[in-house]
Amino acid sequence: MINIAIDAMGGDFGEKPIVEGVIKALNIKPFNAILVGKSEVLKPLIPKNLEHFVQYEEAEEVFSMEENATDALKRKDTSIYKAIELVKNGKAQAVVSAGHSGASMSLATLRLGRLQNVLRPAIATLMPNITGTTLLLDVGANTDCKSENLFQFAIMGGVYAKEIMQIAKPRIALLSNGEEECKGNELTKETHQLMKKLPNFIGNAEGRDIFNANVDVLVCDGFSGNVILKSCEGVAGAIFKILKADIKTNLISKLGAVLMKPSFMRLKKKIDWQEYGGAPLLGVKGCVIISHGKSDARAIQNAIFQALHFSEANINKAIENELSKF
Amino acid sequence: MINIAIDAMGGDFGEKPIVEGVIKALNIKPFNAILVGKSEVLKPLIPKNLEHFVQYEEAEEVFSMEENATDALKRKDTSIYKAIELVKNGKAQAVVSAGHSGASMSLATLRLGRLQNVLRPAIATLMPNITGTTLLLDVGANTDCKSENLFQFAIMGGVYAKEIMQIAKPRIALLSNGEEECKGNELTKETHQLMKKLPNFIGNAEGRDIFNANVDVLVCDGFSGNVILKSCEGVAGAIFKILKADIKTNLISKLGAVLMKPSFMRLKKKIDWQEYGGAPLLGVKGCVIISHGKSDARAIQNAIFQALHFSEANINKAIENELSKF
Repeated sequence: MINIAIDAMGGDFGEKPIVEGVIKALNIKPFNAILVGKSEVLKPLIPKNLEHFVQYEEAEEVFSMEENATDALKRKDTSIYKAIELVKNGKAQAVVSAGHSGASMSLATLRLGRLQNVLRPAIATLMPNITGTTLLLDVGANTDCKSENLFQFAIMGGVYAKEIMQIAKPRIALLSNGEEECKGNELTKETHQLMKKLPNFIGNAEGRDIFNANVDVLVCDGFSGNVILKSCEGVAGAIFKILKADIKTNLISKLGAVLMKPSFMRLKKKIDWQEYGGAPLLGVKGCVIISHGKSDARAIQNAIFQALHFSEANINKAIENELSKF
Repeated sequence: MINIAIDAMGGDFGEKPIVEGVIKALNIKPFNAILVGKSEVLKPLIPKNLEHFVQYEEAEEVFSMEENATDALKRKDTSIYKAIELVKNGKAQAVVSAGHSGASMSLATLRLGRLQNVLRPAIATLMPNITGTTLLLDVGANTDCKSENLFQFAIMGGVYAKEIMQIAKPRIALLSNGEEECKGNELTKETHQLMKKLPNFIGNAEGRDIFNANVDVLVCDGFSGNVILKSCEGVAGAIFKILKADIKTNLISKLGAVLMKPSFMRLKKKIDWQEYGGAPLLGVKGCVIISHGKSDARAIQNAIFQALHFSEANINKAIENELSKF
């Protein structure tokens, strides 16, 4: 059975939603959960029938969201540090953390180390599109990139799409401000030329292509990726707010909204990031799933399933194989 | 009366929606329209009662969307070239074009020239937010920027917000991947320090802040701006597509959608770029409004009104004044 280290104290809402997420996951699929944090706080939250699936690793401190990621290495008593160490020492195959993502990332990179030939790890996230999902990377690990970094992100994303998303020939594209090869900034123009070496490269794609299901893997630097994530979150939120405010002014619309509620709920579920759990950090030894600080139990459950799939697949070996070809 | 040169042949759908937009605008507010294109094609489209508001400037050619913007200067018989020349020669105060935006931009920059001290002109666009609009710039003119460029975009955007959007103290922010000063890529970190000189600078903002009405002017490089525009268009489109598909599967939802139709229509109108007409090019001598290639008559009408407001205001003088302070 796979051992998963869970940073039980990180996250904006403390241990409650995280432990609930672990319980939800355990009720569906067995695995060994190693809860990292204060066992005296955590133990009472685990129901009797699941006790034998849960172990504890003591960690007195939490790396807070206000701290600087560069300090993570010094804070050896934090739950995220100890969770990463469990993977480093072979006691767990994967980490799930909803804590400080910068800290998770730098600890993973520095303590677990990068896979062979990886210059920089990248955070990959699944975005919902009209028919399924698009993998977007990097979404925050690297704000300033070189073309070789983006080239490697493309390879790593392609492997993830094959191994985890089960897409035999993933369509890999480069985010730019136009589809034509000549479009882009200096970075993307240079990257475009490198990416031509990849058999699955389909060229430049624009922001809208994330959602129209034309692309399986979209590559960008972490700054653009973060801007996309947050803009899209913003526009979706604004649409529902504007609609809600409008409905209040009109009784017939209100009735319509009541009748449409199941449709709205299904839409919400489909575009809700909590459904996608977390974002794998690609390019490090081991498996690190970075969850949103505001994750609820469902998001943590899904992040755990991601960690299970990742650990069961041979993705890290496949990344090293692919990279060695170039 | 203000003379507005209208590139009547550019745009993805030819002269029809453009001339219709001119007619719509003339029916609301008088101005002198100079239609640039083939007068034999254009004349029959203008109703008798508006004839005395319309003049013609012959242009045999159209600068096509497939051409390279750098060739615009050589193609002296295109409608966009001739429209820009009308402003250069003082025969018109403004240009509206739904043609090749790169061509409009480089012709405006090279033929009209930049305002005093302007390093690079920027395309500014109004984005709908939950209560009004946010001005986003640059959205495509400059894919690679230096911090001094972004600093000037902030000043120009601030002037536009004051003069056209009538916001006495516009809140100016810098797009980054986090609100904290330390967040960002090299470019934004450097720009943040420069922007501190601006009294209305409120710090970094994230993608979502475009929509929550916390910011009046959001500054970014043209690559990021383009990515935002297209991603947001994509996510809005995907939301409606998913919802539409879902409604089809359920009779009650379908009925609900019928009842909600007026609310959906108002939402659509609110978030529809056609409502906002076009994007002013800030930093050039004269007034150039760049419209979407897919503009319908309403979008052209709104772009013309933008050109009228712009020409009536003292924005270019104000931009020069503000820039001279730094």
